[in-house]
Amino acid sequence: MSASALIGLDWGTTSFRAYRMTADGDVIERKEAPAGILQVPERRFDEAFAAQVGPWLTAEPGLPVVASGMIGSRQGWVEVPYAPCPAGSADLVNGLLHHRTAGGVDIRFVPGLSVRGQDGVPDVMRGEETQILGVLAARPETRLLVLPGTHSKWVTVENGRIDGFATFMTGELFAVLRQHSILGRLMQGAETDDEAFERGVRFGLATEAGSGGLLRRLFSARTLGLFDELPATGINDYLSGLLLGAELREARGCVGEAATRAGVVIVGGAALADRYRRALALADIACETFEGEAAARGQWVIARAAGLLR
Amino acid sequence: MSASALIGLDWGTTSFRAYRMTADGDVIERKEAPAGILQVPERRFDEAFAAQVGPWLTAEPGLPVVASGMIGSRQGWVEVPYAPCPAGSADLVNGLLHHRTAGGVDIRFVPGLSVRGQDGVPDVMRGEETQILGVLAARPETRLLVLPGTHSKWVTVENGRIDGFATFMTGELFAVLRQHSILGRLMQGAETDDEAFERGVRFGLATEAGSGGLLRRLFSARTLGLFDELPATGINDYLSGLLLGAELREARGCVGEAATRAGVVIVGGAALADRYRRALALADIACETFEGEAAARGQWVIARAAGLLR
Repeated sequence: MSASALIGLDWGTTSFRAYRMTADGDVIERKEAPAGILQVPERRFDEAFAAQVGPWLTAEPGLPVVASGMIGSRQGWVEVPYAPCPAGSADLVNGLLHHRTAGGVDIRFVPGLSVRGQDGVPDVMRGEETQILGVLAARPETRLLVLPGTHSKWVTVENGRIDGFATFMTGELFAVLRQHSILGRLMQGAETDDEAFERGVRFGLATEAGSGGLLRRLFSARTLGLFDELPATGINDYLSGLLLGAELREARGCVGEAATRAGVVIVGGAALADRYRRALALADIACETFEGEAAARGQWVIARAAGLLR
Repeated sequence: MSASALIGLDWGTTSFRAYRMTADGDVIERKEAPAGILQVPERRFDEAFAAQVGPWLTAEPGLPVVASGMIGSRQGWVEVPYAPCPAGSADLVNGLLHHRTAGGVDIRFVPGLSVRGQDGVPDVMRGEETQILGVLAARPETRLLVLPGTHSKWVTVENGRIDGFATFMTGELFAVLRQHSILGRLMQGAETDDEAFERGVRFGLATEAGSGGLLRRLFSARTLGLFDELPATGINDYLSGLLLGAELREARGCVGEAATRAGVVIVGGAALADRYRRALALADIACETFEGEAAARGQWVIARAAGLLR
């Protein structure tokens, strides 16, 4: 067994991940469990933590623990105030919230980030800030990132700090439309349809005012099928593409055309990253996928900057 | 009992309405039942029709019957092909589909309408075309209409004919987000919040690219609450306003700024019409609400043009 120097927790709404790392941030062992904060009964986070990570701490008592994600939200274990953008590792270290568990373990909770759009509307992230630090450690030249998901985040970086970001409800909207709308009821089959996906992306990206926006375009997933111009087996991928194209169009408006020219780093699971790669190609935005374990790497960056590593 | 000249059926997906009318189109009697086409078991439309309208026909045999709405769709009783736009009463008369019921009653089914957007995307309506003819009979100067609902329709009129239209999934999107998304879970209380509604409308109408589109803006319903800038009791109306504002913005792009300058006629129920009136005022678009029974009036217009009235 290698000597460990850090335990990292990536504890979200619906998933729990833990990493045991060396002093260099290499992951020695990982755990994944369906123990997201919504799944922990009666918010017994002490027990859930001990059940998952207890054995590591028994074997190597006193390991520092850094936790990121929704576990630090109002619905989580302890609420860590959001740190405002721009924010880099020093700002996140300043915002760490120290909490000692019932079992006497010291945990440092990473703050989420907040930002105000140019329009005054607030935005927030929790967990992604740590992943982003992880990406920046490996790719310091990164200027723009997208973290796809239920609430997809587009993030700009300046001078090594997270400068700003915007959230898009793409993933959640796709899920509710697929499960609960007429569009979902029209969908057939489970096979993929790349042509339908690309067609959706192109329509989502279109900028003509006469094409309306999302409210009108969504209805095309119904009418194209009605006129036999889209197979029922393609509606799922068409809708996925349409929403993804719309996200790219919106994000380009938010971060600015210039910011997208240097390309974007995709941070996410393989299947979703692949969809984003294809959509970004249709939008003429260069991209790269980050393959590393961004959260663990970010937790290590923070632990090191906080002087927690022995 | 007044002498009747026509029975009109406004038979939709979730509702059934029948009107007994004079030769002048005045409604003598109306029926409403939860017998929409999705609620008729095993598509036994003959039985449902006889149960609702049988007594009228027994009392006055041989009355002509005109039916509009989704009853004329693939999921309905008989499928009437869509008539292409532009279309007026003569075109709808030409497209009437004559069907004799098992009980020997002659029914004329009104065709729905189809149109191609400038972007080549097809659009359809079924039932609204009849309501629009009804509005035009009373207000021949109408040039632009909105029919709010699950799938809201914006319709342009030229030379007394329906020239084109566009559908927006506003109502359905609001319903699925309220019932199934994180935004719905954040909503509290049932009271109305006019201020939140108007704030939502204004944000939905905003045209700055830096504000993104609907995918980003939807998330503001969450973050404003998180920062205590929107009460949980106001999220419902904020979301309603946001979607309505987005619809107005999209519709203005689709029909053209010029078309909205002469004002729009709202055709719909009182509560929804009131929301549209308030949103249209914020968008500086003049409006008027049509208070009559548009569907019955339209059925009468078609029956008269088809020579069905004695």
